[in-house]
Amino acid sequence: MSFEFQIESTSNRARAGRLITAHGEIETPVFMPVGTLASVKGVPQDTLEELGVQILLGNTYHLYLRPGVETVRKLGGLHGFMSWPRAILTDSGGFQVFSLNALRKVTEEGVTFRSHLDGGSHFLSPESAMAAQIGLGADIIMAFDECTEFPADRARAQASMEMTLRWSERSKKYFEEHKQEVPWSSCQLSALSHQQTQVPRFARNDKQEAARNDRNDQKEEGHATQALFGIVQGGMDLDLRKESALRTIEIGFPGYAIGGLSVGEPRNLTREVVEATLQHLPADKPRYLMGVGTPEEIVEYARLGVDMMDCVLPTRAARHGLLFTSEGRVSIKQARYAQDQGPLDPNCGCRVCRRYSRAYLRHLYASNEVLAQVLNTIHNLSFYLDTMRRVRHSIRLGEESRFF
Amino acid sequence: MSFEFQIESTSNRARAGRLITAHGEIETPVFMPVGTLASVKGVPQDTLEELGVQILLGNTYHLYLRPGVETVRKLGGLHGFMSWPRAILTDSGGFQVFSLNALRKVTEEGVTFRSHLDGGSHFLSPESAMAAQIGLGADIIMAFDECTEFPADRARAQASMEMTLRWSERSKKYFEEHKQEVPWSSCQLSALSHQQTQVPRFARNDKQEAARNDRNDQKEEGHATQALFGIVQGGMDLDLRKESALRTIEIGFPGYAIGGLSVGEPRNLTREVVEATLQHLPADKPRYLMGVGTPEEIVEYARLGVDMMDCVLPTRAARHGLLFTSEGRVSIKQARYAQDQGPLDPNCGCRVCRRYSRAYLRHLYASNEVLAQVLNTIHNLSFYLDTMRRVRHSIRLGEESRFF
Repeated sequence: MSFEFQIESTSNRARAGRLITAHGEIETPVFMPVGTLASVKGVPQDTLEELGVQILLGNTYHLYLRPGVETVRKLGGLHGFMSWPRAILTDSGGFQVFSLNALRKVTEEGVTFRSHLDGGSHFLSPESAMAAQIGLGADIIMAFDECTEFPADRARAQASMEMTLRWSERSKKYFEEHKQEVPWSSCQLSALSHQQTQVPRFARNDKQEAARNDRNDQKEEGHATQALFGIVQGGMDLDLRKESALRTIEIGFPGYAIGGLSVGEPRNLTREVVEATLQHLPADKPRYLMGVGTPEEIVEYARLGVDMMDCVLPTRAARHGLLFTSEGRVSIKQARYAQDQGPLDPNCGCRVCRRYSRAYLRHLYASNEVLAQVLNTIHNLSFYLDTMRRVRHSIRLGEESRFF
Repeated sequence: MSFEFQIESTSNRARAGRLITAHGEIETPVFMPVGTLASVKGVPQDTLEELGVQILLGNTYHLYLRPGVETVRKLGGLHGFMSWPRAILTDSGGFQVFSLNALRKVTEEGVTFRSHLDGGSHFLSPESAMAAQIGLGADIIMAFDECTEFPADRARAQASMEMTLRWSERSKKYFEEHKQEVPWSSCQLSALSHQQTQVPRFARNDKQEAARNDRNDQKEEGHATQALFGIVQGGMDLDLRKESALRTIEIGFPGYAIGGLSVGEPRNLTREVVEATLQHLPADKPRYLMGVGTPEEIVEYARLGVDMMDCVLPTRAARHGLLFTSEGRVSIKQARYAQDQGPLDPNCGCRVCRRYSRAYLRHLYASNEVLAQVLNTIHNLSFYLDTMRRVRHSIRLGEESRFF
């Protein structure tokens, strides 16, 4: 099997386990850093490995526009292209089409939209979104959905949910018929073997080599494919969420995401919808809450039984000088840090907190130095990953109270 | 002694040796990367260490404006401020005052200029430039000079040279009277010891700790001070260069720089002036050619007997996608690299060439990703440092022909 989910410990509703993918194992609950354009902005891949990142998220919409799916596919998929041997998840492109395109046109067939880069016209359907995600070759890919806007009345939320359900079926159908076309599948590997021998030795490091050997092992077994997850929609209506969950499960996926949240609704409503929806998702399949959240929220949702989360918050906030620490938020641009010799977070062991003072980080930010973004992003990711590491540890020890 | 220069091998006019400073040894000939604002743009300090950088250059003018000398001094000087335990050299600020300030006003006393940041009025004299450089605490500091513009007639070049000679004497006088005020000198360390014990443990890593212990050893000997270098001017006139060299030597410094080049003159004229000036510099003192050059030029000038060079070219070119390789220049933005799976430089072992393809580097640059700047800078610095490593090796083996 190229995809598997094992639950190893539970503590009330929280679960600790592992996802097994063609590109390595992922301990859950997991926070997935966002690498929109095949890069976590400012952070080299070896630093991400050092931080313990086991899975990255890539954005299909952005990669589809730049450098284009065909380029990535020819270069071995996202793993080969960005030289990242560990697991990757891509979203369906649906969320960006909706959030970045005021002039989109939605029909039963799909969505026509204009590129935010050059205004060029593009069309994404369940089929073309699947083709794109197969070409990008992430380990986990997402059904093409309509992200219902907020606020939406019940009729609108229902119609949108029905559309997502029809698109989910079409996504699954296309995926089942084409999943062997992933760049690292057994037949693709054979077809590409001529090209691969031409890759100069320096372009692959030892880890990539190991990953490639892993894939070759799987090739012999002939099983390596991506996993397609379904997405539950239904707006903020709990009955619709239940119906969406049950009918998505009926279609059948190896994992289920909760979409359509963090779209402007109040935080307590997000939580209510998540909690209600989780009740209807199968206990033995991974549950992915999309686009969430703050450090407090990721702990809270892990407690409720979510296994996977992603959010631009740690990386985007870092670029704006907002840093998460064990002692609370630090806005490093403030003059009060100009002569502060202490580390950013005295309880953090990341390479930034081990080496640099708040005064230096403040100077880099105030001087608009690129290193500010690099170091701030490394720290914020380290804080998020450490948080989830402690959550997993607490679940395994059954010491729920320590963290929850 | 806190500063020493040893020549260990010569090959024709080229010399290989080492500079011994209060913050470690530097193998020469050496290329010094530029870290204008206490940061080599985009590259963390641990990566610079990995690359084998033994000495960094900081710009007094920029640091004087931001974050200010007093802030850096309070935080232990540049070494403590930027957490860089190895050697540092600062320029005098003279070159930037001249190159960034069209409206400067030069008098015998010094230069009045407006900040390029906020237009505020500032004044730098030999004395205040020395005070600034003592406060910043680099291991090697430079006399305050007037960088003669190009072209300049003989009268102008001579008057400017005379001014630089008078300013050199004043620089030396101020330095001799105040050199004990460097943040890491014996008396300053005692005065600061109360403050230093308040530095949280995480703000210092092991290497800093080691460097501090080294300094404490020197404290017992009571010798640790900075080294002040003189600067030879004289425009493009070889007689004036000779006179400037001889009279600067008469003032007496532990090292001599050739300034006032790379100011717009043709390349063959630069070489002519360098070659003529070098003849008049003492063989047993380090010779520093300021602001030079391309990979070919740094090899050429090492051949002529230059021991130290610095230039923004590798770091600035990297930010514009111009990369130096063993096979020549690569402009990574070009569409021809969009599907190029090969490494940037097949003969380079840097972490960029080991891991990423030209296609990926081209994508990062074309997508305006910050990682482009980070990786491009790492490679270009690696190329420059490798080049000088091979030059040193060739000199030591006496195989001049291999490189020269």
